[in-house]
Amino acid sequence: MKIRPATDADRDAIWNIFHEVVAAGDTYALDPNISREDALAYWFAPGTHTYVAEEDAAGDGVAVPEKPTACPTIIRARQILGTYILRPNQLGGGSHVANAGFMVSASARRQGLGRALAEHCLSEAHRLRFRAMQFNYVISTNTAAIRLWQDLGFEIVGTLASAFRHPDKGYVDVYVMYRSLL
Amino acid sequence: MKIRPATDADRDAIWNIFHEVVAAGDTYALDPNISREDALAYWFAPGTHTYVAEEDAAGDGVAVPEKPTACPTIIRARQILGTYILRPNQLGGGSHVANAGFMVSASARRQGLGRALAEHCLSEAHRLRFRAMQFNYVISTNTAAIRLWQDLGFEIVGTLASAFRHPDKGYVDVYVMYRSLL
Repeated sequence: MKIRPATDADRDAIWNIFHEVVAAGDTYALDPNISREDALAYWFAPGTHTYVAEEDAAGDGVAVPEKPTACPTIIRARQILGTYILRPNQLGGGSHVANAGFMVSASARRQGLGRALAEHCLSEAHRLRFRAMQFNYVISTNTAAIRLWQDLGFEIVGTLASAFRHPDKGYVDVYVMYRSLL
Repeated sequence: MKIRPATDADRDAIWNIFHEVVAAGDTYALDPNISREDALAYWFAPGTHTYVAEEDAAGDGVAVPEKPTACPTIIRARQILGTYILRPNQLGGGSHVANAGFMVSASARRQGLGRALAEHCLSEAHRLRFRAMQFNYVISTNTAAIRLWQDLGFEIVGTLASAFRHPDKGYVDVYVMYRSLL
């Protein structure tokens, strides 16, 4: 598995993951019916660093043409499994604090991909000289994410009472999580 | 003093106040060099309710023309003293929590205008059926604002350590403030 900056060629794969995550409506406060255009404008916004996690190339193959003189075609089997963004959480005097957002394809969950993305993200945030990282909106029912962030040194620094309307559980609390990078 | 929804005719006055507040760089995490276009796009964004506070009409006058047959011109002396925005803080499952932002002209401060705007804003938030209001980014050195919000029932529910680089005071804490509207 390789994590690298996203390119325009990743837009379809990112939209597939984005749509799947947002349509579920239980982890992000975004319109579940957001359009592809708005979603990609958000994920590739100016000032935002966008990354993807790509499967190893083990599945790559070569289609051998019937005519022996024709050029063989490389079949790229590498699949995008997840994506994250890293950006300043605020502008002006707040631009030294990073914000990040993570999305993993449902088919690739429970395999440590979230942790790999998060560790890559923290390393990038250090490289880009951010002094802290903030998650503005961690829904309290998203216990896997909360455990992961706590494991990586984030603390719950704020609780927003009943700030999220969960599709199954009704109004639930939301956490603000924060970690110094110094 | 009258508080009313902003119109396109208020854009110049709003930009004057916005520019003055943001250029000071000590209360908002916005680019102090933000352009007029970007500032007004932010203040009049889709889904955002924008209001202005206008001086009473006492100063209105009539310019009497020299020719007695010409039509007199009404001189509008009403000045915009402050402005605020009210909007959902998040989309999707978070859209029942309001967010607001306030700006008062330097020449109109310490006269209770901030409180009048805030009370108007809470009343509008009730009318629009928001269930809570959140301020994401109250800079800890902005003690007048913090006192006002606390007086109006808001609580500090989160502290972001050194999240703002103050132009004079260096890195200072930022508060998340929250109030139920139920």
